[in-house]
Amino acid sequence: MFDSLHEECGVFGIFETKTTEVAHTVYHALYALQHRGQEACGIAVNDDGVFTHRKGNGLVPDVFSEERLRALGCGNMAIGHVRYSTTGGKDTGNIQPLVIRHIKGNLALAHNGNLVNADEIRKKVELSGGIFHGTSDTESIAYTIVANRLTSASTEEAVAKTMATIRGAYSCLVMTATKLIAFRDPNGFRPLCLGKTDRGAWCVCSESCALDTIGATFVRDLLPGEILVIEKEGVRSITTYCGKKEQTSLCVFEYIYFARPDSVIDGASVHRARIRAGEFLAKEHPVDADIVIGVPDSGLDAALGYARESGIPYGIGFIKNRYIGRSFIQPSQEQREDTVSIKLNVIRENIKGKRVVMIDDSIVRGTTCARIVKLLREAGAEEVHMRVSAPPFRHECYFGTDVDSGDHLIACRCNSVEEIAEEIGVDSLGYLSIENTHRLAENATVGFCDGCFTGRYPIAVPEEVSKSRFDEKLGHYADILD
Amino acid sequence: MFDSLHEECGVFGIFETKTTEVAHTVYHALYALQHRGQEACGIAVNDDGVFTHRKGNGLVPDVFSEERLRALGCGNMAIGHVRYSTTGGKDTGNIQPLVIRHIKGNLALAHNGNLVNADEIRKKVELSGGIFHGTSDTESIAYTIVANRLTSASTEEAVAKTMATIRGAYSCLVMTATKLIAFRDPNGFRPLCLGKTDRGAWCVCSESCALDTIGATFVRDLLPGEILVIEKEGVRSITTYCGKKEQTSLCVFEYIYFARPDSVIDGASVHRARIRAGEFLAKEHPVDADIVIGVPDSGLDAALGYARESGIPYGIGFIKNRYIGRSFIQPSQEQREDTVSIKLNVIRENIKGKRVVMIDDSIVRGTTCARIVKLLREAGAEEVHMRVSAPPFRHECYFGTDVDSGDHLIACRCNSVEEIAEEIGVDSLGYLSIENTHRLAENATVGFCDGCFTGRYPIAVPEEVSKSRFDEKLGHYADILD
Amino acid sequence: MFDSLHEECGVFGIFETKTTEVAHTVYHALYALQHRGQEACGIAVNDDGVFTHRKGNGLVPDVFSEERLRALGCGNMAIGHVRYSTTGGKDTGNIQPLVIRHIKGNLALAHNGNLVNADEIRKKVELSGGIFHGTSDTESIAYTIVANRLTSASTEEAVAKTMATIRGAYSCLVMTATKLIAFRDPNGFRPLCLGKTDRGAWCVCSESCALDTIGATFVRDLLPGEILVIEKEGVRSITTYCGKKEQTSLCVFEYIYFARPDSVIDGASVHRARIRAGEFLAKEHPVDADIVIGVPDSGLDAALGYARESGIPYGIGFIKNRYIGRSFIQPSQEQREDTVSIKLNVIRENIKGKRVVMIDDSIVRGTTCARIVKLLREAGAEEVHMRVSAPPFRHECYFGTDVDSGDHLIACRCNSVEEIAEEIGVDSLGYLSIENTHRLAENATVGFCDGCFTGRYPIAVPEEVSKSRFDEKLGHYADILD
Amino acid sequence: MFDSLHEECGVFGIFETKTTEVAHTVYHALYALQHRGQEACGIAVNDDGVFTHRKGNGLVPDVFSEERLRALGCGNMAIGHVRYSTTGGKDTGNIQPLVIRHIKGNLALAHNGNLVNADEIRKKVELSGGIFHGTSDTESIAYTIVANRLTSASTEEAVAKTMATIRGAYSCLVMTATKLIAFRDPNGFRPLCLGKTDRGAWCVCSESCALDTIGATFVRDLLPGEILVIEKEGVRSITTYCGKKEQTSLCVFEYIYFARPDSVIDGASVHRARIRAGEFLAKEHPVDADIVIGVPDSGLDAALGYARESGIPYGIGFIKNRYIGRSFIQPSQEQREDTVSIKLNVIRENIKGKRVVMIDDSIVRGTTCARIVKLLREAGAEEVHMRVSAPPFRHECYFGTDVDSGDHLIACRCNSVEEIAEEIGVDSLGYLSIENTHRLAENATVGFCDGCFTGRYPIAVPEEVSKSRFDEKLGHYADILD
Repeated sequence: MFDSLHEECGVFGIFETKTTEVAHTVYHALYALQHRGQEACGIAVNDDGVFTHRKGNGLVPDVFSEERLRALGCGNMAIGHVRYSTTGGKDTGNIQPLVIRHIKGNLALAHNGNLVNADEIRKKVELSGGIFHGTSDTESIAYTIVANRLTSASTEEAVAKTMATIRGAYSCLVMTATKLIAFRDPNGFRPLCLGKTDRGAWCVCSESCALDTIGATFVRDLLPGEILVIEKEGVRSITTYCGKKEQTSLCVFEYIYFARPDSVIDGASVHRARIRAGEFLAKEHPVDADIVIGVPDSGLDAALGYARESGIPYGIGFIKNRYIGRSFIQPSQEQREDTVSIKLNVIRENIKGKRVVMIDDSIVRGTTCARIVKLLREAGAEEVHMRVSAPPFRHECYFGTDVDSGDHLIACRCNSVEEIAEEIGVDSLGYLSIENTHRLAENATVGFCDGCFTGRYPIAVPEEVSKSRFDEKLGHYADILD
Repeated sequence: MFDSLHEECGVFGIFETKTTEVAHTVYHALYALQHRGQEACGIAVNDDGVFTHRKGNGLVPDVFSEERLRALGCGNMAIGHVRYSTTGGKDTGNIQPLVIRHIKGNLALAHNGNLVNADEIRKKVELSGGIFHGTSDTESIAYTIVANRLTSASTEEAVAKTMATIRGAYSCLVMTATKLIAFRDPNGFRPLCLGKTDRGAWCVCSESCALDTIGATFVRDLLPGEILVIEKEGVRSITTYCGKKEQTSLCVFEYIYFARPDSVIDGASVHRARIRAGEFLAKEHPVDADIVIGVPDSGLDAALGYARESGIPYGIGFIKNRYIGRSFIQPSQEQREDTVSIKLNVIRENIKGKRVVMIDDSIVRGTTCARIVKLLREAGAEEVHMRVSAPPFRHECYFGTDVDSGDHLIACRCNSVEEIAEEIGVDSLGYLSIENTHRLAENATVGFCDGCFTGRYPIAVPEEVSKSRFDEKLGHYADILD
Repeated sequence: MFDSLHEECGVFGIFETKTTEVAHTVYHALYALQHRGQEACGIAVNDDGVFTHRKGNGLVPDVFSEERLRALGCGNMAIGHVRYSTTGGKDTGNIQPLVIRHIKGNLALAHNGNLVNADEIRKKVELSGGIFHGTSDTESIAYTIVANRLTSASTEEAVAKTMATIRGAYSCLVMTATKLIAFRDPNGFRPLCLGKTDRGAWCVCSESCALDTIGATFVRDLLPGEILVIEKEGVRSITTYCGKKEQTSLCVFEYIYFARPDSVIDGASVHRARIRAGEFLAKEHPVDADIVIGVPDSGLDAALGYARESGIPYGIGFIKNRYIGRSFIQPSQEQREDTVSIKLNVIRENIKGKRVVMIDDSIVRGTTCARIVKLLREAGAEEVHMRVSAPPFRHECYFGTDVDSGDHLIACRCNSVEEIAEEIGVDSLGYLSIENTHRLAENATVGFCDGCFTGRYPIAVPEEVSKSRFDEKLGHYADILD
Repeated sequence: MFDSLHEECGVFGIFETKTTEVAHTVYHALYALQHRGQEACGIAVNDDGVFTHRKGNGLVPDVFSEERLRALGCGNMAIGHVRYSTTGGKDTGNIQPLVIRHIKGNLALAHNGNLVNADEIRKKVELSGGIFHGTSDTESIAYTIVANRLTSASTEEAVAKTMATIRGAYSCLVMTATKLIAFRDPNGFRPLCLGKTDRGAWCVCSESCALDTIGATFVRDLLPGEILVIEKEGVRSITTYCGKKEQTSLCVFEYIYFARPDSVIDGASVHRARIRAGEFLAKEHPVDADIVIGVPDSGLDAALGYARESGIPYGIGFIKNRYIGRSFIQPSQEQREDTVSIKLNVIRENIKGKRVVMIDDSIVRGTTCARIVKLLREAGAEEVHMRVSAPPFRHECYFGTDVDSGDHLIACRCNSVEEIAEEIGVDSLGYLSIENTHRLAENATVGFCDGCFTGRYPIAVPEEVSKSRFDEKLGHYADILD
């Protein structure tokens, strides 16, 4: 569903062999990771210990002009971040990379994921006099690293100690005066991989597509739990926290929706996983129809898979406005046009008088979906059979995805698949089964988290809202009054 | 080929039944026509004879903010324009709509196309004391209308007289205090169609996709040579200049590349025409292969057609960065990444070890194409067979398309298709035949111009550069010195 | 009065001996002329016949960044313009320099002043098929030059013919491929002077302060009626239209308010003229008081003169916010602060318990003036005696000053000076006499226009609004309907 | 000297009686305090505990548009800050107000001044795991308050404890969910005063001119050492740290240069102090001359005082471009114009053939001064006698003024006043004596700091650069390596 689910972040870091226009490379890599966060972005450059950075709200090409990139200067290291914010909103204090000074000097941090014990850590830091500039959990990670650094011989040792404290989803980059350190939580909730350029620079990023874009070669994924230290002498790996595959739980939605199809994550092609989703759907929910179409962009691959498996011809049902991807002015009440029809248009020729199988990656609230189905009906579809390349969303995600919750979710609001089908106006509806969801990423080197579908989370999640919970607006805890 | 050919313009006009937020509707319509021109755009609003307008370089959402749209005010009529400029460049004097005052008051003009006798008209106007603010041919049309208006009872009469003078491609909108007039050249080089909204407003636009976007219903195409007068009393048609179908010559490249696939032009679906291109190619140039892929976005439909006809499976070969469509900072010499790899990435999984049929809509210079083929080779393609859904470009277009000319064109530079194949690095290469090009748009109500392929133009084109030719930079003619 | 009267324009042109960063020099000169127009500005650069230009709404440093200046490129000639618009408003079509193409090539025009027969010329041009992009009289001048150019051997000859047609106030610069031509109306309503730089470049500008700013030396004022032709071979003067001093009529308000005090205009120092205004006022309207203060900035010099002549000590009454000069957000109804107190603050120490003589250059509507007097009263002034360094405004200006008219003018609304004094709340009020107004500019080489005070204009002014008058909003004439 | 000395900050806070457009009032107040810092500014709004804020580089009207002010929302409290940065530069992490969250919720802090033990505090905080986002001392103050808050019953108690730790110059505003707290260091280095609006809102600000601007009434100065607590119940004062007048030491340069002349600080009018400076100079350094002029803007008052005392006529020597105050493009090497002549122009009429006394407030490096003297010589001055309304700068300021140091200072570089006179090209030169400097602010309720003239500082200043000193670029201490 093209506007209902949001990944929170993408990260990229590079360690060059010499001082160079490193900000430009980060810019192009972030451009490739833009789909992971369209709300804000930032780049921090390290020129032999001297840090410069720029951050702002907006898409990568909106925040960075040639002039601004040049103003960042050259350097031998840099990290960048693209962000979608959840609550806490557009607070500029939350834009990353977080660039701070501590007792050992400058440090920059970029984080993709979400901690489950961030409030706990935050409160503990605040009770000992700590100050927070934003409301995100990234500052909690920074404080933990900085505190551990005081009793550690190196930043990587501090990071290792930090991993014993923080819990949840985190794929992080830490840049110090001399090192670029990447680390991934033991569950491996979010992807992170290593690449290398022709000229010998090391890169770490959320998805392999960023490597392709800048002409780097994919080396390998970081293991869940791994700490990677990149320094002048080369790359070192610390695997203390790495466990067995059964203990890992990559977010399966990375394959279904978040990642770019041209990325390969933890051993499995995203594109191939989506094709398989379609194939499974064809087996699970066959139907007699004339054409299989996908909702652009993320439903297209699964539609191809469904078509192949079912033998029903694959066709193009919708054209998506190519210039979407940046904000446009919403239609007002006075106007007839609506947001969906500005983004999508039906190819009438392919739909009129046809029995249509329409594939999408998910249904969240159901309203956009109902609108899209209506477009097909208006274009003359005889029947509309919807197939969804994921199980129904029923539970909150605590690991970095912004899913609606409770009654906002159509799958919570309705009592049965039939009721959902009726609400969105389709003749039949079929979801991918949990079993096949786990089989999407063939040969993947990791296990998967399916908490948003099953409510069974791989690690303990925070209790229901407690008195102690942090209030982002007032900036304090319910049980502490001024 | 995603960055080598440029349509020059898209137009949209609306005549409301009452004063309303008309600029917002134009905004959304231009958004839908953005593919026809990404360099500049403008909107002119008519509030009972009082005109306001705003124009600027950039994409529609860059030039217009909510605040700026509001500043245009409400009105009962408006026209808008998106533009790609050819020579004359980013001169702000060329951005449309052209808004002027003449003896009868305010007048706004939006034009898609290119005149072959613009220089001649311009010179004549200048010889009688005329002043030009820009270098485009749109001012020549305006002057001709204005001059004819002096001896005419109405603007539509002046337009009719104008059509006897101007020659070439023109799909135009003229807005006066009380009327919206649309007219299309007798050849019908560029598309233009009429629609109507639920609330009774009439719309005229370059492509039907703009009607869908704003929730209007397609009524019909304007006939080549037709003048349509929209006023309070309704719509009137003047068909003096309309001839037989054989005399019409819509640019066939509208179907192959320019138009959005969800548009229907002169009776034929653009998407369907592209599917047919692929089918024809499969028949004309069959090959034994494992997968058929398209170069996004305009090669995808033809690839589907080729796959269907040939029986070779259709697959996804490339992912295009969704955020392309606005300018981004080009990589510098120092960097490894190149523009093509920032825009396109291969899905290795689908290519490795495969014999690939790659479909694109055209080859212009050949350099981008060669780079794309190289991406496939690097991804492990065993064989690459290229099929092009158009004949080779060999001749200049005088009717509104910016094609390179002479030795820039690979088809002029090379002596044979084999030589081209070698230059771009493919195992085989096949172009669509001229015959089938004419059969793409099944049931079309018009004939086609194929001048860029054949050098046979439907109307006389300007001679080779003469002494009298207008010099855009110096603003005068070679034979007139100050 | 610091915000009620508006000069319409300032011009600057330069003819270099070689290609250089000429736009930068124009930028700094316009910066010095910014007081003559804060609404819009523009620069046109001529590089051997190829023209580039940029124009925009806003102050010089807002419209031009370093990047934008560079984009204009180098050249050997350039002209610039700062503008305050009267009716017709912020229509971007009116921003100057006007850059056009005519039969002889590129031409740029910058104009300070106002024609009295612009509508007449416009109508005539329109009746022969002419097109106007804006609503200002500058296009009328351009059309006249261009028309005359067709029958002239040179542009200067065309300019000479043009001066026989256009009537009113005009200090103009015309830039062609090879020449910079300056001309001033025979009355000399607006100033224009010639300067030269060390490196041999010729400059023409509205005020000598622009010459000082760029390090050029003042050469001489242009004579009323003079045409100056600057070309590679040097400077030539055409004096056909130059008459006797008695026939000239420079706007006396240039000395009183418009010009910068450091400028010397037509032989007289502006600063000195203002000092004399104060001296005359002290003689005409003596009063017993403790301190003489001026309303910043233009009342300060006259206050000094009054103090010197009267023997009453000169003091500082108000501090003006130094950062005024660019737009700031106006206070809303909800807030207590008002626009005057944001701009001006009283030095209480100098006012409390004092009998104050307050000098300002003029009173237009009277409301701002009353507010300023109130500030003095609130600060504890015992008496406030206002002296105005000009006679009362009672009549419209047709020559380039935007004065309010009719009942907006306090001097029209009130029956006597006493009544005005009461309305603005002062203990006494004295205006400069007409006689002394003519004696302000000692040794000036020209005579003066005092039309706004006396209603006696040096040339015939347009009749009362006739049916034929041009309607700026509808873009046509009352007697011509579409 | 108009561009060599920089005050670091201005602060403004308001506590309204109800929710209102409080950001607009802060905007106008900051506009009035703009002279205290032109590099960056910010506003933080408190709506019943929920904080919003916006900060940016640039002047107040550049950072805040109507839209951005509105986006800050309404509130019942707000604080604002204008800033000039010293080293640490334009780091956006240093722009104030500092808005943070700590264990008790949101807190905003605005600070004018400079601590002498900031590095010490910073290091201590960092050694216990603290994180800094910027390099300014404001974060050190925040950390101290926050740490003390943990062991205090209220924020004011925490502030009181903080004042026992921090040393140096600080006039601060702290905003919590429910309180606005103002405090001034015991020396009273920087001004701070209290005002009240008609509608009962309390204001605290750096200078009284901000009160006048927003229509508030001056109530009183804060005592050096005073803590003022503004809350719903009213205003409370804590005077624990207030000492005797002899122990106080307001920066005397506030009177000489920094403050606006219309402000009254600690019982003395700034304008009056400057007039007295001129009077003292006339007595200390009499000279036979024809005219006394001041260098705008801050030399003008003293020139008036000199003229009055000496009997030599006061005149206007220079016109300052009114539009200076915002950045403009610097002239390049290729151009003749220089920065000084863009800002200042001589009124030749007043200078030619005259013996001139020129008054300025200070001489720092001497280069700008020499350039100004040269302007007078070029305008024909016979003699130039410079009088400076301050003693020579010879020592660093540790309390919030950015003076150059060491050999950059002409008074350090030269061995005598005569040598300085020769270097800047004047016929005679006289500085104000230390004794009279202390007598400028007649009836002031405080004593003065003259450390920059005498090297005798009222409190101990940091030792020479030690190993432990904080390196702003590397973000750490010389003795601590990673």
